[in-house]
Amino acid sequence: MRYRRIPNETIRRLPIYLRGLLFSSEQGQQSISSHDLSCFIRINSWQIRKDFSYFGGFGTPGIGYNVEKLIKEIKRILKLDVLRKVALVGVGNLGSAILAYPGFGMYGFDIAAAFDINPKKVGRKINNIVIENASRIPALKKRKINLAIVAVPRDAAQQIASALVKAGVKGILNFSPCYIAVPKKVKVITIDIAMDLARLPYYMPAG
Amino acid sequence: MRYRRIPNETIRRLPIYLRGLLFSSEQGQQSISSHDLSCFIRINSWQIRKDFSYFGGFGTPGIGYNVEKLIKEIKRILKLDVLRKVALVGVGNLGSAILAYPGFGMYGFDIAAAFDINPKKVGRKINNIVIENASRIPALKKRKINLAIVAVPRDAAQQIASALVKAGVKGILNFSPCYIAVPKKVKVITIDIAMDLARLPYYMPAG
Repeated sequence: MRYRRIPNETIRRLPIYLRGLLFSSEQGQQSISSHDLSCFIRINSWQIRKDFSYFGGFGTPGIGYNVEKLIKEIKRILKLDVLRKVALVGVGNLGSAILAYPGFGMYGFDIAAAFDINPKKVGRKINNIVIENASRIPALKKRKINLAIVAVPRDAAQQIASALVKAGVKGILNFSPCYIAVPKKVKVITIDIAMDLARLPYYMPAG
Repeated sequence: MRYRRIPNETIRRLPIYLRGLLFSSEQGQQSISSHDLSCFIRINSWQIRKDFSYFGGFGTPGIGYNVEKLIKEIKRILKLDVLRKVALVGVGNLGSAILAYPGFGMYGFDIAAAFDINPKKVGRKINNIVIENASRIPALKKRKINLAIVAVPRDAAQQIASALVKAGVKGILNFSPCYIAVPKKVKVITIDIAMDLARLPYYMPAG
């Protein structure tokens, strides 16, 4: 099937839809209306219908969207229809929480490697992943891991990111509270917990 | 000053601009062009100019935007121009990482309380915050804390959220990988690390 070019803002919402749909699927739902999905994920139903229109008409009037079909399409568009190995760098509190996080599998992610520089941590096992010395990052290329999560202190973030890029990593989810410079061909998404919190007060009632 | 209604999508980008501007300010920059801000935060400069147009003309052609003025305006719009106390519930790995996170102050947030149910954790101190028993959540009303971060296991999330709402909390940043039901007057933002990761592959080159 051919698509019109999908706008970036729609791409940003697709994982939100996907999560809602995967949850509906878990609950045994076979179809869902834009209205019900809207109540659930709190995105306007007209926005949902508009976004879904970019990749063809799965909706049946009065019945709704076919959940499994939609999951399959969104996964395909987001390139989540293959298993993707992911490396984690930095196994502090945040890194340990990430290793223990149960939600990666549903998007096709497999945390397949974890690195730290602390000799006390290297060799330890969390959630069946043996923590390796960060000096082994260059071997990621051979292991065909091209996605990484960076959860190291601010001062180390740029150096780690550069090592990852050199090892062939093409996408980085960065939790260090700083900007990291990478070549244009590499995509970085920086998560700043405080920035997410900063979106809340606007929506809160006064007083 | 009176504003036109600012679209939700612009509101979503304001914290990103704010972070970039705060960083520029830290570096001693007094003005910044939409082009330079664009390179830095990786949002199109036309989008930046359009977003900034909603709250009046701070830009001077050939010079750019006044950094401090813009910071002040964005903080005012996002209601970040006052100090806001925040409660954290759940001091596991993720909660500990949040308590140690240095970036809250720049947005006017002060993590003023931390709760857990584990008796081994209650009474301990992290980053000068004494961990309290979760049974003390109802006292948040008296302490004028109406923002909370939830970092508890999935099974406990709804119960904790309900207790927080009962204690007068109006905004929740939820890290538990589940939906939580709250009255309409309460704003919840759910952070799903796996979902953020799910946005990466789309932008990665093939192969």
